Amino acid sequence: MRRDIPKLMKERDIDTIVVLGGGTNNPVMTYVTGPAKLMRSIYAMTADGTAVLVHNPMERDEAKETGIPCVSFSELGLKRLVEEEKSEIRGEARMIALILERIGAKRKVCFYGNFETSRFMAYVDFLRQNMAGLEIVTEKDKSIFDVARITKDLDEVEKMRSVARKTCESLAIVRDLLFSCQIKGDYLVKKDGTHLKLGDLRSLMRTELIKRGLVERGGTIISMGRDSAVPHNFGNDEEDVRSGRTIVMDIFPGEIGAGYAFDITRTYCVGDVPDEVRKMYDDVREAQRMSIESLRSGSLARIYQERVCDFFESKGYRTIRQGDAIEEGYVHGLGHGIGLEVQEKPRLAGPDTNVDVIQPGSLFTVEPGLYFPSRGIGVRIEDVIYARPDGKFEVLMDFPRDISPSSGR
Amino acid sequence: MRRDIPKLMKERDIDTIVVLGGGTNNPVMTYVTGPAKLMRSIYAMTADGTAVLVHNPMERDEAKETGIPCVSFSELGLKRLVEEEKSEIRGEARMIALILERIGAKRKVCFYGNFETSRFMAYVDFLRQNMAGLEIVTEKDKSIFDVARITKDLDEVEKMRSVARKTCESLAIVRDLLFSCQIKGDYLVKKDGTHLKLGDLRSLMRTELIKRGLVERGGTIISMGRDSAVPHNFGNDEEDVRSGRTIVMDIFPGEIGAGYAFDITRTYCVGDVPDEVRKMYDDVREAQRMSIESLRSGSLARIYQERVCDFFESKGYRTIRQGDAIEEGYVHGLGHGIGLEVQEKPRLAGPDTNVDVIQPGSLFTVEPGLYFPSRGIGVRIEDVIYARPDGKFEVLMDFPRDISPSSGR
Repeated sequence: MRRDIPKLMKERDIDTIVVLGGGTNNPVMTYVTGPAKLMRSIYAMTADGTAVLVHNPMERDEAKETGIPCVSFSELGLKRLVEEEKSEIRGEARMIALILERIGAKRKVCFYGNFETSRFMAYVDFLRQNMAGLEIVTEKDKSIFDVARITKDLDEVEKMRSVARKTCESLAIVRDLLFSCQIKGDYLVKKDGTHLKLGDLRSLMRTELIKRGLVERGGTIISMGRDSAVPHNFGNDEEDVRSGRTIVMDIFPGEIGAGYAFDITRTYCVGDVPDEVRKMYDDVREAQRMSIESLRSGSLARIYQERVCDFFESKGYRTIRQGDAIEEGYVHGLGHGIGLEVQEKPRLAGPDTNVDVIQPGSLFTVEPGLYFPSRGIGVRIEDVIYARPDGKFEVLMDFPRDISPSSGR
Repeated sequence: MRRDIPKLMKERDIDTIVVLGGGTNNPVMTYVTGPAKLMRSIYAMTADGTAVLVHNPMERDEAKETGIPCVSFSELGLKRLVEEEKSEIRGEARMIALILERIGAKRKVCFYGNFETSRFMAYVDFLRQNMAGLEIVTEKDKSIFDVARITKDLDEVEKMRSVARKTCESLAIVRDLLFSCQIKGDYLVKKDGTHLKLGDLRSLMRTELIKRGLVERGGTIISMGRDSAVPHNFGNDEEDVRSGRTIVMDIFPGEIGAGYAFDITRTYCVGDVPDEVRKMYDDVREAQRMSIESLRSGSLARIYQERVCDFFESKGYRTIRQGDAIEEGYVHGLGHGIGLEVQEKPRLAGPDTNVDVIQPGSLFTVEPGLYFPSRGIGVRIEDVIYARPDGKFEVLMDFPRDISPSSGR
């Protein structure tokens, strides 16, 4: 949680953190400032909690709303620094040095945040050459922010529950459009007499999400048949929806601007469900049920991946632990943490070096799947699980898992 | 333009470029790969044009669509590397080293792309310690991508024109809602009898944009009165729209996923336009007209800022060149390049160290404004100008500039 950061800094001997980049598409910045519509900003904090947010003067209102002590680029004399250095990069690097002085930063500084690496590299080299006594240190596999963000406080959970609810409302509307169409031949026909296309489902999803203040984070997977059998194939908008095919809808939107995300996958099949699809669907459903029921606080996250591989292999499927280049069978990890990013820690997946632990306060997906590109079948079922502080586990937002409304499963 | 990159690499003595990060919110990646829905990817290219795109095996379809030679993490043995190093970061850094070998990278490598800086720093330190002969070099104020992207090819211009058209369609619908309300007292009343709020305008804008395949890039400014006088105040959704106030709508959406952006600002005033607002509006309009008419290919971009400051100062306003901390008058730069990002080069602004030049093939905003927080007035008018290859300038998408439909201006 957020409050763990000073402790984590001390444990890792990091005196000062500096977060670079704007307020959107920058989860670490959002984590320290809250949602803030800043195009450019720098946040710095020492281990004793002294913090400053540096902003464009035009963005003073947005910066002030964060409640963090603020100072603007112009108050720090950025223009003069750039002129003196005859370089934006060196001027900005000198401004970072001034910020560090201002908050009484000590020796060991670590940088965070999504930022253009070419520019960052130039800052680093300038600071290393020009700031005697400053040591720019590197992070571990899990940065202090990765660690802090694994466990959510109740306020974060409530925000995520709200995103989850709105996502499921949107998904229900899209599912209902899919199943309300008439089947003619194996095409689905809309009320206006035209064929339903995957693009119709995707644009309806977008519209319903936006109405609720949510926006896609890099897209929505609505894929069918062979494409549904390649997990991150987003699907072809121009394709006519057909009965008897697997349709995977994997939706992972977030709050508009900056904020929390949610992630859910359902697999649908309109009309008669082919036997082999039904069989795979039931196996995936069972893998998910078994995984969720067996969750225990304090356990290694990757053991659940092992168990699902055991299960699928016992059913005769190939799995990723038999070779990470396989394309048929169970080809991916079981799940991932979720929060400000769609994919965070813990990872419910190999390799053995992954020591992520299932902890109270954590939210993560459980999403087994089976994929057969050669047979044009893909099945995945995904839910977000909340590891509650009381040690119990709950599905953050329950939503029907049936492959079709009439299937009862 | 894209084709300038190998030449720019040679001029700067950069043997190999490596672009880190996913396919969304990562303009440099989008520039080299085109729009591609990749969660994680690495692109590398040598100066002779040998390129490779490294991707998650699950994203092989999306990667292949780019047309770039592809190799997956599993083909490069990432899992084994992570296990051998007992570290994700070191395993990934070793994978980068393998990629460099594979494309025959020479000594000087430069990194680009939006990427978490703490992880990048760890890659850099690992590579510097473990790859003898590798030199990780830094970039100039304008990276080779900044320079290449200043000039757009015709294909990019057509994409931007399409975004512009769709944005203006959306803006027209929102403007029409604003001016179709009845005025009661100084409130605006919707057809359902309730007061129009700024949030109504903002959510209509979002919905209209999404319908057209566009999405906000970090928000939409719809601000009124005092808030409209702080340029990057996004406005308060709960606020009732009032007549006689300046309403600034600054819209800068982009294609969904990854792609080109557009940027336009209009200032509206419903009902009777107060004289001081009318006066400022006319001055801003005149500043914009004068700026656009005086544009010349090959000129320094910052001279237009100087001229607008001359103009506003001659009218008795304070300007940012009199002090970069001013909050009243003309408080910002005249414009910025636009493309895959809302703000690119050239910058039509100081300081004197800015040597950006107006070049054929460039697209940039011209957006003078006047701001008086103490009087609750903000006015800005912004259009995107296309510097055509024939040396002429055109407004990319003309859209009425009137402060109110009845004003005729």
